[in-house]
Amino acid sequence: MAAAPVWSVDPRTGKQRERVAAEATAEDVDAAVRAARGARGALADRAVRAAFLRTAADRLEAARDRLVATADAESALGPARLTGELARTCHQLRSFADLADEGAFLDVIIDHPDDTATPPVPDLRRYKVPLGVVAVYAASNFPFAFSVAGGDTASALGAGCPVVVKAHPDHPALSEQVAEVLRGAAAEHGVPAGVLGLVHGFRAGLDLIRHPLVAAAGFTGSVRGGRALFDAAAARPAPIPFHGELGSLNPVLVTEAAAEERAEAVGAGLAGSMTLGTGQFCVKPGLVLVPAGAPGDRLVKALADGVGATAPGVLLDHRMRDAFVAGVAERAALPGVEAPLAPGAADEHTVRAGFLTVPAAELTGGGAHDLLLEECFGPVTVVARYSGAHEATAVLSRLPGNLTATVHLSADEAAGRGRGAEILAELTPLAGRVLVDAWPTGVAVAPAQHHGGPYPATTSTSTSVGGTAVERWLRPVAYQNTPEALLPPELRDDNPLGLPRRYDGRLER
Amino acid sequence: MAAAPVWSVDPRTGKQRERVAAEATAEDVDAAVRAARGARGALADRAVRAAFLRTAADRLEAARDRLVATADAESALGPARLTGELARTCHQLRSFADLADEGAFLDVIIDHPDDTATPPVPDLRRYKVPLGVVAVYAASNFPFAFSVAGGDTASALGAGCPVVVKAHPDHPALSEQVAEVLRGAAAEHGVPAGVLGLVHGFRAGLDLIRHPLVAAAGFTGSVRGGRALFDAAAARPAPIPFHGELGSLNPVLVTEAAAEERAEAVGAGLAGSMTLGTGQFCVKPGLVLVPAGAPGDRLVKALADGVGATAPGVLLDHRMRDAFVAGVAERAALPGVEAPLAPGAADEHTVRAGFLTVPAAELTGGGAHDLLLEECFGPVTVVARYSGAHEATAVLSRLPGNLTATVHLSADEAAGRGRGAEILAELTPLAGRVLVDAWPTGVAVAPAQHHGGPYPATTSTSTSVGGTAVERWLRPVAYQNTPEALLPPELRDDNPLGLPRRYDGRLER
Repeated sequence: MAAAPVWSVDPRTGKQRERVAAEATAEDVDAAVRAARGARGALADRAVRAAFLRTAADRLEAARDRLVATADAESALGPARLTGELARTCHQLRSFADLADEGAFLDVIIDHPDDTATPPVPDLRRYKVPLGVVAVYAASNFPFAFSVAGGDTASALGAGCPVVVKAHPDHPALSEQVAEVLRGAAAEHGVPAGVLGLVHGFRAGLDLIRHPLVAAAGFTGSVRGGRALFDAAAARPAPIPFHGELGSLNPVLVTEAAAEERAEAVGAGLAGSMTLGTGQFCVKPGLVLVPAGAPGDRLVKALADGVGATAPGVLLDHRMRDAFVAGVAERAALPGVEAPLAPGAADEHTVRAGFLTVPAAELTGGGAHDLLLEECFGPVTVVARYSGAHEATAVLSRLPGNLTATVHLSADEAAGRGRGAEILAELTPLAGRVLVDAWPTGVAVAPAQHHGGPYPATTSTSTSVGGTAVERWLRPVAYQNTPEALLPPELRDDNPLGLPRRYDGRLER
Repeated sequence: MAAAPVWSVDPRTGKQRERVAAEATAEDVDAAVRAARGARGALADRAVRAAFLRTAADRLEAARDRLVATADAESALGPARLTGELARTCHQLRSFADLADEGAFLDVIIDHPDDTATPPVPDLRRYKVPLGVVAVYAASNFPFAFSVAGGDTASALGAGCPVVVKAHPDHPALSEQVAEVLRGAAAEHGVPAGVLGLVHGFRAGLDLIRHPLVAAAGFTGSVRGGRALFDAAAARPAPIPFHGELGSLNPVLVTEAAAEERAEAVGAGLAGSMTLGTGQFCVKPGLVLVPAGAPGDRLVKALADGVGATAPGVLLDHRMRDAFVAGVAERAALPGVEAPLAPGAADEHTVRAGFLTVPAAELTGGGAHDLLLEECFGPVTVVARYSGAHEATAVLSRLPGNLTATVHLSADEAAGRGRGAEILAELTPLAGRVLVDAWPTGVAVAPAQHHGGPYPATTSTSTSVGGTAVERWLRPVAYQNTPEALLPPELRDDNPLGLPRRYDGRLER
């Protein structure tokens, strides 16, 4: 039986653009994993990793026009957004190069012998080593930043782990082009091309997670797809870490005082955030608690004005479009739900942004309305009108885990007069990132970033954005009583590499 | 139906000592978890946690004679060993108090806004917060150090997480006594007694891992029991981290040069390590690669002398005794396996230590001999005689993950002349701790310790011993654009708590 073809499709027309590749067979997946494993040695030197990552960024920038054109043709996200996303992707690659140079993530700890301890302490020296081949499952909605050269790949390579990417079917042509660029960068530093494998196809994704030589996985996508892969990772004879980012409602609470003070600004800001990228962000605000009454009405009016001024947009593929149209219709049909600006199909290929409103009391009792507490991917948000802080709290207490939770406060509340601290304490258990007077869309690439949260936001306690993402691909190993002559330089007393470390209990930087 | 009684049993006689408690019903488990959850707030202050842990250590020491007597009556491990183990346990509690005071594990990272970045960086401040209620599954073989007041409990409390312990059925009376001591310590610092729950019974263990308010689990025990709980944790509607230490063969390689140089010392050292605690250590050396030929013969002779001089001992319970007797018999019956000193039953309650020998070539082909590559709990080790380094490598390459891997080198090899570095590189992928010219038994409580390893040694990349064990019970949260007035003190620019942190990219200590 011939392998199924992989087509690049234009979501603006639904037409096939070109035949890119064939779906990977079990043999193809095995070959990609073995080639990646063979490239481990070349990544052992942190300086080589750093140089490779920087060259990759340089070459992606050099190929920008061609890559952005392909990305736009496959995603309809537009050249401006995609040019920015490519810049972000290159910044991310260089950030992990900097971290590889610094070496703090090795977490070096050195203890000298202490015979007075119970039990006695021998000479013990610990650092972190790469886990092995990492499987990366690319996302639909960020063809650069969460795909072949995205954060999972950059952090894994920075940690010293070769990568096999399972391409997202929404941008197979771009995936092939980016993989070629990365392999060219690898070759420049003597790293085998196998360091970056690329496979296509649903079945290949399952074969990959089950491959005995795959040591860990990163995933960004849906709850359904992510959970299936998480379950497969856990069911292996030897289970492996599965760092999946699955889904998030990203609740927003607008206090009564904030609504009174700046209803229009908050409403307009919400309109901008929920329609950004045609609502196709993991951190799109999907549930907004707005007070009942006149100030809240003004907020909803400003939201309607902002969303109403947004042109119809094209979603990433027709499957998502169908799911969006069906999802908003199902939600709009629930008792008590109104659609002041109905989201849905605009024409055969585009969708219209919109929002739904519902009394918050409908969300505290369970039943059919729980659908409103599930993510609906695309340009829609649910505005829940609450009466009194207790009702807002009651809704928040029913939410599953989220990537973000946001509160908009009045100036007085932000200054510490009022319930601000109490609200932050309420939001912290719900999410991995808590925002005040800001919008969750636009995830900065920075050391303090945390892009993760309680399940189903993520399947682990880790982040896929920001410097600490590298920690996912490492494991500690301790060397006991090892002669100086055999120690890796990272663990020698004289610290020839100048690494930050914990030395006989004291932190040294 | 009345709840099943829980009996304390004397393994020296097999007789019931006293009725300690009843097995916990689903309602009991739910009540314990809810009580633990209610104690979270009292642990929010790191100074309170530290004081509580230190008082717990003081009170355990004050109750030493009573506790050691109970532990000995239930475990037959002997007062000397148990007195040492209690000292280790108290040291461990105080170590986590010190870490709670220091606060480095909060991993504070602060970034100030940077509008020139792509995308722009807002004010972002990240630290780690406690995960919530932790379930701890106590081990059989360390009634103090891996039980109610053991490393999992100490690290979880240090992280700010209340604990519900599933008691090990081999020491229910001691478990109740230790829990009472910990609750007394808690009360002294205004921490509710629910901070340390204790439940008995197999079914209660499953109810506990499935409880929606349990946020993570620590386990030390068998591959079979640990995997069942791991699977249950992964199958939850919202999966939770399961940090299990399941099983380990702990391979030892003796080089030809080391055997030539000091066969007798290595043989005697091995005898001491494999019979320590009647062979009931997770890190007992279970497979030893010894060169064929005269020096190796001398090593085996010294091993036989050492083991032969060991008095018969009592295993922790009769189930383990039966499994040991059956396990060694099944292994000894394999073709090519010899038993120069046959391990097995000595009388109705005690067992005799011993060892088996086998040509290493039998271990490279798979089949029935793979049984020799599985842990056999109790005082037995398998000596595999190899011809040439390639044969030793071939056996090592077939091993699953281990807690430890050890090599004994000659003085020349240890000085860097010979294959020492190459052998360390071969052992590193196999284990979480690599030892040179030492024995794996005796796991130091120290910052650089790593007690974990590739599956099945552990189900995660974490450690259950040493300072970094605390990382298992925390998750990061980032605060974006949060006014100074609402920030926790840990995240303020002026660093009022003097915490080590990463500040605008730079490490500060």
